[in-house]
Amino acid sequence: MVQRSVSHSDLVACSASEVRSAIRSGSYKGHTAGLAVGKLQCNLAILPEKYALDFLRFCQRNPKPCPIVGVGDSSDPTLPTLGHDIDIRTDVSKYRVFRNGTLSDEVTDISDVWTDDLVTVALGCSFTFENALLRTGIPVRHVEKGLNVPMFRSNIDLVPAGRFGGHMVVTMRPIPQAQVDQAREISRRFPQAHGAPIAVGDPAQIGIPDLARPDWGDAVEIKAGEVPVYWACGVTPQNVLLDAGLPICITHSPGHMLIADVAEDAETTILTRN
Amino acid sequence: MVQRSVSHSDLVACSASEVRSAIRSGSYKGHTAGLAVGKLQCNLAILPEKYALDFLRFCQRNPKPCPIVGVGDSSDPTLPTLGHDIDIRTDVSKYRVFRNGTLSDEVTDISDVWTDDLVTVALGCSFTFENALLRTGIPVRHVEKGLNVPMFRSNIDLVPAGRFGGHMVVTMRPIPQAQVDQAREISRRFPQAHGAPIAVGDPAQIGIPDLARPDWGDAVEIKAGEVPVYWACGVTPQNVLLDAGLPICITHSPGHMLIADVAEDAETTILTRN
Repeated sequence: MVQRSVSHSDLVACSASEVRSAIRSGSYKGHTAGLAVGKLQCNLAILPEKYALDFLRFCQRNPKPCPIVGVGDSSDPTLPTLGHDIDIRTDVSKYRVFRNGTLSDEVTDISDVWTDDLVTVALGCSFTFENALLRTGIPVRHVEKGLNVPMFRSNIDLVPAGRFGGHMVVTMRPIPQAQVDQAREISRRFPQAHGAPIAVGDPAQIGIPDLARPDWGDAVEIKAGEVPVYWACGVTPQNVLLDAGLPICITHSPGHMLIADVAEDAETTILTRN
Repeated sequence: MVQRSVSHSDLVACSASEVRSAIRSGSYKGHTAGLAVGKLQCNLAILPEKYALDFLRFCQRNPKPCPIVGVGDSSDPTLPTLGHDIDIRTDVSKYRVFRNGTLSDEVTDISDVWTDDLVTVALGCSFTFENALLRTGIPVRHVEKGLNVPMFRSNIDLVPAGRFGGHMVVTMRPIPQAQVDQAREISRRFPQAHGAPIAVGDPAQIGIPDLARPDWGDAVEIKAGEVPVYWACGVTPQNVLLDAGLPICITHSPGHMLIADVAEDAETTILTRN
């Protein structure tokens, strides 16, 4: 079946369900930044049930990089607490399939990869607090410039669980000195989206050698009067999953998030009750 | 070994670790309200690993009655993210041991009940937001009167996971009409402690027939100008565990909570990092 392709701008005014539908049908394969504004977007981790208890323990112990916002039943591709009609096999625009800790495929549908022992874990993402910063007039440099947020390996130890552990990945956003406290206060209100910064100022204090050379994403300018502010990053659980060398695990591709029906400022990430 | 007994008032000025030490040695067997002020107190659920993944999914889907604040490794009685020296077999002043859904024993030490397949789950408790209400001058009637909070079975469906499900248990506190919004705003800041109210006003809307007849705890007076306000209650997961009829599960006894070293207003409930 040939699908008519739709563009990012075609979808800007669409609901979360409509965007998922376009992704599900194969007519949209792009990134999700700026879509379904106000709805929670999620990092994705799908792994065998055998490892799920340890992975949930790992996330519980590292809530800032790994804020759990939804967990599927074993073998069940739906996520009813995040959206009425989500099918996680088809509703993300790009997936990465890893086997034994190595990237095996990047695909737009995992229906033929899905097996009955898989468990889906959805984790909060930084779009949520970035939107809140922007709404209050705090600049977000990489958004202004149309770049990816710069991400860095830090020396901050994660609390291990089972085979999961390692170091935290952080994002950096330059914030005007006078607005750092406000940025902290605003982002702290979103524990489902990495919460308050984990460090402010000198990158060496968290083991970052050079802010001009991010490990992922794009370097951004730090202007006079601005301070580098570091938040826990959703790439952390992805790295930890890879390092664990599971026989199979599946994540979203960067920027291609799961869009939920849950409001990003809801008290809980559970759709059916507040 | 004969232990010298200490009283509640002997412990009021003690640290969380000192209170746990008195409990561990057997010299204190009482309730924990008002002890280690400012530290997180926790509901306790210990269950076989076989059921732990479903129970964690259940808690994730019902975060207001079941806010997870700590999860132990399988077979490990320590909880390093909640306290440096916690041994969950000895550090709670009274436990209830259930077998096949029936109360089997109420004991002050579970060392001889502990087995290598058990997993400890610690859940937030209402002491945290009650302390915050009291600090801002919002009255908490049952505290004023030295009573237990009134608790009621509601008709609010829980989101099921595996064999875990049922209806929410709620607490009721009469709040002056003019302070209801403030009480909501304050308690919402404590997602690790049941968060904002789940209902306000008419008890019939959530299936409570008579506020004068709580299912657990003590009835309290609702004065003129006050409104009944309902919060999700930590008895919910206990009931759900009982109904699930597990071969064994262990909870704290009401009022005899696990006291953590984590500050009750910390951003996360993880001791080793913020």
